[in-house]
Amino acid sequence: MQIEHIGVVKCQQRFRYEAPRQGSIAPANEALIVLKDDKSFTEALNGLSEFEYIWVIYEFHLNQTWHPLVRPPSDDVGKLGVFATRSPHRPNRIGMSCVRLAEITKITLRIEKHDLLDGTPVLDIKPYIPYADSFPNASAGWVDRREEIEYKLSIDCLAARQMEWVKENAGWDLKNFLLIQLRTEPDNGVRKRIKHIKENSYVISYRTWRIEYQIDFEDCLVNILCVSTGYESSAFNFVSDDVFNDKEIHKLFVKKYPFN
Amino acid sequence: MQIEHIGVVKCQQRFRYEAPRQGSIAPANEALIVLKDDKSFTEALNGLSEFEYIWVIYEFHLNQTWHPLVRPPSDDVGKLGVFATRSPHRPNRIGMSCVRLAEITKITLRIEKHDLLDGTPVLDIKPYIPYADSFPNASAGWVDRREEIEYKLSIDCLAARQMEWVKENAGWDLKNFLLIQLRTEPDNGVRKRIKHIKENSYVISYRTWRIEYQIDFEDCLVNILCVSTGYESSAFNFVSDDVFNDKEIHKLFVKKYPFN
Repeated sequence: MQIEHIGVVKCQQRFRYEAPRQGSIAPANEALIVLKDDKSFTEALNGLSEFEYIWVIYEFHLNQTWHPLVRPPSDDVGKLGVFATRSPHRPNRIGMSCVRLAEITKITLRIEKHDLLDGTPVLDIKPYIPYADSFPNASAGWVDRREEIEYKLSIDCLAARQMEWVKENAGWDLKNFLLIQLRTEPDNGVRKRIKHIKENSYVISYRTWRIEYQIDFEDCLVNILCVSTGYESSAFNFVSDDVFNDKEIHKLFVKKYPFN
Repeated sequence: MQIEHIGVVKCQQRFRYEAPRQGSIAPANEALIVLKDDKSFTEALNGLSEFEYIWVIYEFHLNQTWHPLVRPPSDDVGKLGVFATRSPHRPNRIGMSCVRLAEITKITLRIEKHDLLDGTPVLDIKPYIPYADSFPNASAGWVDRREEIEYKLSIDCLAARQMEWVKENAGWDLKNFLLIQLRTEPDNGVRKRIKHIKENSYVISYRTWRIEYQIDFEDCLVNILCVSTGYESSAFNFVSDDVFNDKEIHKLFVKKYPFN
């Protein structure tokens, strides 16, 4: 069966480690779905804007292989059959996510609460119909047994200003990234780029940026302390060697917030 | 993107008019999903049996073309964009249904409350996870505005015995068919094979079988009166002309329940 993409996802999250485990736990997460510029797709969206949630059917484009058994992102579960999980490593690379529909403008859909990655090819869009799709009390095997502690985020004044600066000048929404990544297991570095620097203190990486935080395990609180550059100061001497094309913005950041 | 089927649906419903509009309104509807006989698929099902509901991703195999605008199975709605509906006539023929998982035996899944057709190629199976999939209060545009009256079924003693006979001898579950088809708009023949014979009296066809019923519109009740054969008595003289290969069973039925 041959499948053609009807559009593509545009958002900040480019790598798997940046995406939330499910869209429903990432309320601030926004994306665009841009359909192919085809008159019939404009028509095919007719009436959809009245729906609050939609299903996005898409291709897990970063996966080429699959295995019958996978390890879900949860301790104590062990290996499970891939059909008992929502893992992207499936015989057919088809994903489906229920996301909040914010707005439709011609062939562009603005969505919220999503877990999609930038560049994801979209295969279909369907309305979310509660009487067909919603079974809130359905039992869910290992997912039900998972004991998940949810951490709250508190952001220090300095960190808040720095993140605001990064958003305005570099375009990255670090706060949204932290809300997603540090919500559960903020000290578990298996699927996140986390470094334990001293007792209760950690640094998480987002591309070339570093964010320092402390964990209060007793009160389930993550305290965001400050943002820093991932570059060594010496790196700025070799501006030609700028693979991520962002040394200029980091130099400006360091000028405003010098290396501690 | 190339997609391979991982299995196929086996059930009584072969044609579109036989399927319920959504699986959730057809509690008695059973089917089997038989996966390809492959060791890795047995493993891939590991842990799934603990889930109460599953998503079946499948191919709408009876559809080859699509149109941007479609008319949903509901009066007063008019034409809608195909992305605002669950119509099978989509740019990519991908369907998804949430069904109840009853039992898994090796590579065979017994499911309930489904809206699938016999022979449907299955592309993927995913667990239903309430926190990611369930939004019971999501608003749903035209689906919310649809005023739907639900009819109850009452089955006369004769009809009950006849349907039991047909189930045992011909293998067709007429009761399940009627529960699905006469639940709403029992007098609307647009998508059902219904004939209005006299005031409040109707006949609905299921393959070569006919079922007579009366509608009490005031109390929203459908009264099933009797089952009859779709063959004229003369048709039994030409047994060689037996395209549906069921004249023998109809002859036995008529012997037990003579033409009225």
